[in-house]
Amino acid sequence: MIVDCAHYRGGVRQHEGAMSPEEASSRVGDAQHDFVWIGLHDPTDEEMVRIAELFNLHELAVEDAEHAHQRPKLEDYDDSFFIVLKTAHYHDETETVHFGEIDLFVGPGYLVSVRHGVGTGLRGARLRLEERPDLLKQGPAAVVWAIVDQVVDDYLPVTEGIDDDIEEVEQAVFDEESEPTERIYFLKREVIEFHRAVWPLLAPLDRIESGGITAVDAEMTRYFRDVGDHARRIDETVNSQRELLTSVLEANLALVSVGQNEVVKQISSWAAIIAVPTFIASVYGMNFEHMPELHQRIGYPVALLAMAVSVVVLSLFFRRLGWI
Amino acid sequence: MIVDCAHYRGGVRQHEGAMSPEEASSRVGDAQHDFVWIGLHDPTDEEMVRIAELFNLHELAVEDAEHAHQRPKLEDYDDSFFIVLKTAHYHDETETVHFGEIDLFVGPGYLVSVRHGVGTGLRGARLRLEERPDLLKQGPAAVVWAIVDQVVDDYLPVTEGIDDDIEEVEQAVFDEESEPTERIYFLKREVIEFHRAVWPLLAPLDRIESGGITAVDAEMTRYFRDVGDHARRIDETVNSQRELLTSVLEANLALVSVGQNEVVKQISSWAAIIAVPTFIASVYGMNFEHMPELHQRIGYPVALLAMAVSVVVLSLFFRRLGWI
Amino acid sequence: MIVDCAHYRGGVRQHEGAMSPEEASSRVGDAQHDFVWIGLHDPTDEEMVRIAELFNLHELAVEDAEHAHQRPKLEDYDDSFFIVLKTAHYHDETETVHFGEIDLFVGPGYLVSVRHGVGTGLRGARLRLEERPDLLKQGPAAVVWAIVDQVVDDYLPVTEGIDDDIEEVEQAVFDEESEPTERIYFLKREVIEFHRAVWPLLAPLDRIESGGITAVDAEMTRYFRDVGDHARRIDETVNSQRELLTSVLEANLALVSVGQNEVVKQISSWAAIIAVPTFIASVYGMNFEHMPELHQRIGYPVALLAMAVSVVVLSLFFRRLGWI
Amino acid sequence: MIVDCAHYRGGVRQHEGAMSPEEASSRVGDAQHDFVWIGLHDPTDEEMVRIAELFNLHELAVEDAEHAHQRPKLEDYDDSFFIVLKTAHYHDETETVHFGEIDLFVGPGYLVSVRHGVGTGLRGARLRLEERPDLLKQGPAAVVWAIVDQVVDDYLPVTEGIDDDIEEVEQAVFDEESEPTERIYFLKREVIEFHRAVWPLLAPLDRIESGGITAVDAEMTRYFRDVGDHARRIDETVNSQRELLTSVLEANLALVSVGQNEVVKQISSWAAIIAVPTFIASVYGMNFEHMPELHQRIGYPVALLAMAVSVVVLSLFFRRLGWI
Amino acid sequence: MIVDCAHYRGGVRQHEGAMSPEEASSRVGDAQHDFVWIGLHDPTDEEMVRIAELFNLHELAVEDAEHAHQRPKLEDYDDSFFIVLKTAHYHDETETVHFGEIDLFVGPGYLVSVRHGVGTGLRGARLRLEERPDLLKQGPAAVVWAIVDQVVDDYLPVTEGIDDDIEEVEQAVFDEESEPTERIYFLKREVIEFHRAVWPLLAPLDRIESGGITAVDAEMTRYFRDVGDHARRIDETVNSQRELLTSVLEANLALVSVGQNEVVKQISSWAAIIAVPTFIASVYGMNFEHMPELHQRIGYPVALLAMAVSVVVLSLFFRRLGWI
Repeated sequence: MIVDCAHYRGGVRQHEGAMSPEEASSRVGDAQHDFVWIGLHDPTDEEMVRIAELFNLHELAVEDAEHAHQRPKLEDYDDSFFIVLKTAHYHDETETVHFGEIDLFVGPGYLVSVRHGVGTGLRGARLRLEERPDLLKQGPAAVVWAIVDQVVDDYLPVTEGIDDDIEEVEQAVFDEESEPTERIYFLKREVIEFHRAVWPLLAPLDRIESGGITAVDAEMTRYFRDVGDHARRIDETVNSQRELLTSVLEANLALVSVGQNEVVKQISSWAAIIAVPTFIASVYGMNFEHMPELHQRIGYPVALLAMAVSVVVLSLFFRRLGWI
Repeated sequence: MIVDCAHYRGGVRQHEGAMSPEEASSRVGDAQHDFVWIGLHDPTDEEMVRIAELFNLHELAVEDAEHAHQRPKLEDYDDSFFIVLKTAHYHDETETVHFGEIDLFVGPGYLVSVRHGVGTGLRGARLRLEERPDLLKQGPAAVVWAIVDQVVDDYLPVTEGIDDDIEEVEQAVFDEESEPTERIYFLKREVIEFHRAVWPLLAPLDRIESGGITAVDAEMTRYFRDVGDHARRIDETVNSQRELLTSVLEANLALVSVGQNEVVKQISSWAAIIAVPTFIASVYGMNFEHMPELHQRIGYPVALLAMAVSVVVLSLFFRRLGWI
Repeated sequence: MIVDCAHYRGGVRQHEGAMSPEEASSRVGDAQHDFVWIGLHDPTDEEMVRIAELFNLHELAVEDAEHAHQRPKLEDYDDSFFIVLKTAHYHDETETVHFGEIDLFVGPGYLVSVRHGVGTGLRGARLRLEERPDLLKQGPAAVVWAIVDQVVDDYLPVTEGIDDDIEEVEQAVFDEESEPTERIYFLKREVIEFHRAVWPLLAPLDRIESGGITAVDAEMTRYFRDVGDHARRIDETVNSQRELLTSVLEANLALVSVGQNEVVKQISSWAAIIAVPTFIASVYGMNFEHMPELHQRIGYPVALLAMAVSVVVLSLFFRRLGWI
Repeated sequence: MIVDCAHYRGGVRQHEGAMSPEEASSRVGDAQHDFVWIGLHDPTDEEMVRIAELFNLHELAVEDAEHAHQRPKLEDYDDSFFIVLKTAHYHDETETVHFGEIDLFVGPGYLVSVRHGVGTGLRGARLRLEERPDLLKQGPAAVVWAIVDQVVDDYLPVTEGIDDDIEEVEQAVFDEESEPTERIYFLKREVIEFHRAVWPLLAPLDRIESGGITAVDAEMTRYFRDVGDHARRIDETVNSQRELLTSVLEANLALVSVGQNEVVKQISSWAAIIAVPTFIASVYGMNFEHMPELHQRIGYPVALLAMAVSVVVLSLFFRRLGWI
Repeated sequence: MIVDCAHYRGGVRQHEGAMSPEEASSRVGDAQHDFVWIGLHDPTDEEMVRIAELFNLHELAVEDAEHAHQRPKLEDYDDSFFIVLKTAHYHDETETVHFGEIDLFVGPGYLVSVRHGVGTGLRGARLRLEERPDLLKQGPAAVVWAIVDQVVDDYLPVTEGIDDDIEEVEQAVFDEESEPTERIYFLKREVIEFHRAVWPLLAPLDRIESGGITAVDAEMTRYFRDVGDHARRIDETVNSQRELLTSVLEANLALVSVGQNEVVKQISSWAAIIAVPTFIASVYGMNFEHMPELHQRIGYPVALLAMAVSVVVLSLFFRRLGWI
């Protein structure tokens, strides 16, 4: 689906509403500030082919964009670029991270953005840019920046959601209310998955920051450096979360063992408390003829008393040991 | 066994059926687009020697190709190259990865491919190329690309098979249906093995991508970069799987301990439930002369009732504790 | 809040008390030794905008300084720099590390320091510098050094506090007085967090040390190298602490298991000690007509003696095994 | 002990039997293909001093060769080189790796090899070379290659031996026949030790491969690259083995816990099976006057039957639970 | 304390006994072979200031030397250097590594060594050098080499001491004589600490080896390379020890669990062995009127026999299971 198709010149949109890609491709200008931006969402193969022909996109890049499920990357083809980004969205109810993909074809005078899967659209980035003609007239590089910036900003709620879940899991572990092993494992799985979306992005951003892409001038480079710092911060957070989840799983294992110790001690105490009076009873169940206690009136009450005393003494003893 | 032996010029196969290697070697041309491709499968030593002499292959490379069991690598000998690739195929029934090897000798005007072990042949790559004369006329470099591309594409079903197995193992761990330790271990073993097939391939691909091989021109380099990205994605997937399997083993250990706690609690509850009425019985088994209860009609039923009550009370108590 | 605003020339403060930022900006000099230093603490957005306009600070840097929660970094904008530092303060009672942030805008003739959150102020660094005119006349670079030096020096009490806690935790683990799992986990969490404050600082310091910043001359570089060494030492300490905490958690797990073994042995010994006399009693509780012992006067005392002997023998036996 | 001392010219040994080192040193030629090779085995200090003086070996290298226990390395002294190699031999009975050391002094026109400890000699490498005059006339570099090649080839049986042991250990773990913890640990210890012999060799080999040693010409470089690939493969194998042994230890721990669960369940089942009939017996051991069952002929057989039934029912119940 | 203060020219000490630092500073020569060496041990601040003024040492280096507790490093100040080394000494009784520090100020014509803490002095290095005029006349670089060499040589007994302890710990783990968890932990702590003393030394040594310090000529570089190799070997040993201690802790944990299994099996066997005869006794303790066995003379001995047989049979059974 073609979401929007616009022509910008000198930082200003040249018309209202979307135009046709053919119209757009005919308007591709020479100057940096004069370009068209076509936004696609889950395009059909026909749409991709049509756009690829109009803008002469490279066969390999088009193939990647059709199949999606690429890793984040930046590929340069002489005077054009192909950029893959992973978007992430955190579903709090299911504690899962949903991933989408944005592919960008950038060349002189045009930018084609292809969005795959649900998730935040690029409309926000487009509107934000249209309000900043000073940036927008930097040409497609500014659009790339705005999109990467939005994608990376959208990572923040994901790390925050995971942070909240880690805190809940810590509480579950240390208050021993519920068994958090499964939850910890699947959180870690999410974090590993998320790391794979963020981490490969750092190398292309490094390359842009260090001036490796001539199409990005010094001033735009600073904007990319700013995004790069945010991405690095996200990546460091993700690494910390991974380490924390490993530690919390270990802590949980230790506490399960400690809990088992408690249970064993408690049970054993009660077993001892019942075993002693049972023993006393079996003594007086012996059939010896000459057991003087058996013939005394006071024998039975004394035996019962002895049993009661043994229970009390043992209970106190184990309570002092802290076993019950 | 010589599988196929063909002469290509300008991207077009010059004849039907295979020719003899001697015929092929006599046709080795000067121009990039004019070359022969000989495909061998598990060749005998005699075949290797024959081919080596015809194309003047380097002694060390030939030795490696005869012995197989090399690590993936790219070696250059002045104007020719020796490339080792590991093929992987996933057997779902046994949950094992089967490895094969493809060795490529590439020089001006010729390419010799040597395939070891079972596994996908190169016929697919050959047919695909023959349909793309624009690529095929790039010469042997295009053939190398097509083969590497096929090998790396064949890694994908392997990672997917392992992904499926990991999901089954997770289910086994968290539903506690079966004991998955052995399965987890052997899955991890497969993943470690697979990593060794994929990882060493990244360095040669990096070298080609960065233009280190002059025989690969700028356009072909892009095709290799595309393969390289897929290989890196496979490698990142493999690393995630390794980490997941480590985590799932730890989670399993925690759950085994938790399960043991449950068992101990359950058992202890039942022991307590039987110990109390047994104690009551032993009290009335005592032989004191003066035990008034013994002489009352109602004594026995009351004792039985006391036993029953103790069983019910204890059962409720442990049920409330969540122990049974 | 504007904390101080001073004009320095030739290493000497040119006036007492703070001046207005407007006054300060009008005094910005040409020479390295002639500069103004404005100190802000938790500034309002209006204050930041006012300062940004006066000194022509870069939009992105100002945005970062307003939002705080950046990672330590050094960004250069042609002739000016933006530096982010994380301050750390250890609260001993709660065993937590509290983090603050200092952002520095450095340009020719001015330095703006923005402090976020509670924590040590920069007054100490300012006074220390004012007593060292030889350093102060090196210009803003000397101020940056003094601030970084103070921030890194303030890391030391944090690592020392954590070291003390690790020692307490070790004692808890090996004296088995209390259950330290939770404490170990949260200490590790602090250490991971602290690592994230210190580690990203090393790269910018390396860059200054290796002469990557022309505004810092060779002599100042040595001062930064000294700070860099301290920061690296802190980072190595933090890494050791992380490893120690991992090990102590593992040691704790082993000791919990060992403790469980002890408990099981002890309990089982007592169970055996009571089971044997109970068995003896049940033997003489049998109702056979012809049990000669039952009819002998000495039967009962002998039975009691046998029970006592069995208890003593078993007790000695288990004591020798070291089980009780 | 001087094992052999030979003079080679143009790839051909110039005499039968060994000559004296003095004779050899006097024959040191100018041309690359004209050199002497002296082989020592566990030389006395006097022998080392004598050789050192004859060939003007560097004091530090000689000291290292006398003390042995160096790490693998390549040191260059202007026109001569000192190389240290670790040999490894696997003793299958004891599952231990025995290490030896070979030190090589290489200069223009001479090569002194010093072998320490038991283990394969260099005779094989010498004979192999003497059959390959084309290589041998490349001079001492060819001899170095032949020795390194043999040393690295001898690593292969070590990794294979360890592979076999790992398979045995896996069987022990998963068939739960024997307790493999100690064996796993000492295998891991061997692997760590072996890694230390192989790993430091990679850097010198890399240096030779990349042409860092001018005494090794382009053709010989290929031979070293071949050895380097084998060494890298060994190193990757060793790393996999290390990881496998870590995993198998973890798997073993999990299975020990699982086994404990089984034992606890089994034991508890039997305890319950005996507790219920014991309880029945104690009920009828009560001394109430009015227990109608006691006076009926059928009482006793019914009680015994009830006991038998309880045993059977409980047995079936626990068998269905899978506990016994 | 000033330990020694000597003037060397052409590799020969120019006088007996120590001279005053003032005298020494006045003798500082131009030529490399003409220098003074002042050795301090735990100097007072006054002594440091006096020396710093005489030799014009850099403020920052002097501050570091006064505070000690620096990390190993090499700092160059134009024509002079500041070097920090960590000395290590192993106390076998307490199994602890004691660390000291040596700071070296090296400039043209002088070397000031400052030793902190107990531990081996530098007298050995001084005497060894005085016997080697050929080295000593290389100037202060030779002295630096001799000191670094001694410091690194002194690391060897530390690693050997730790190796011995690891072997003892292994024995404790696998012979299950004592509980080694605490000892393993504190050994690991020592190893981590030791790593921090050795590891940072490698970077400065690398820098000297690669010729980064012009004051060290090619010949001296070889001597430093030799020390560097020893330091690297120590560092690799330390890393192995760290890994071994991690593994031995894991092995210990596994064996503790295995031991628990053994105990549980043994205990359960004995419980069963006593439970069965107790059950038999309670059967004949029942009060049924019609229990024919009770009235037969042979009843009691048969019952006792049945008990004895059950004990023997069960004992044999559990012995065959390997539980007792």
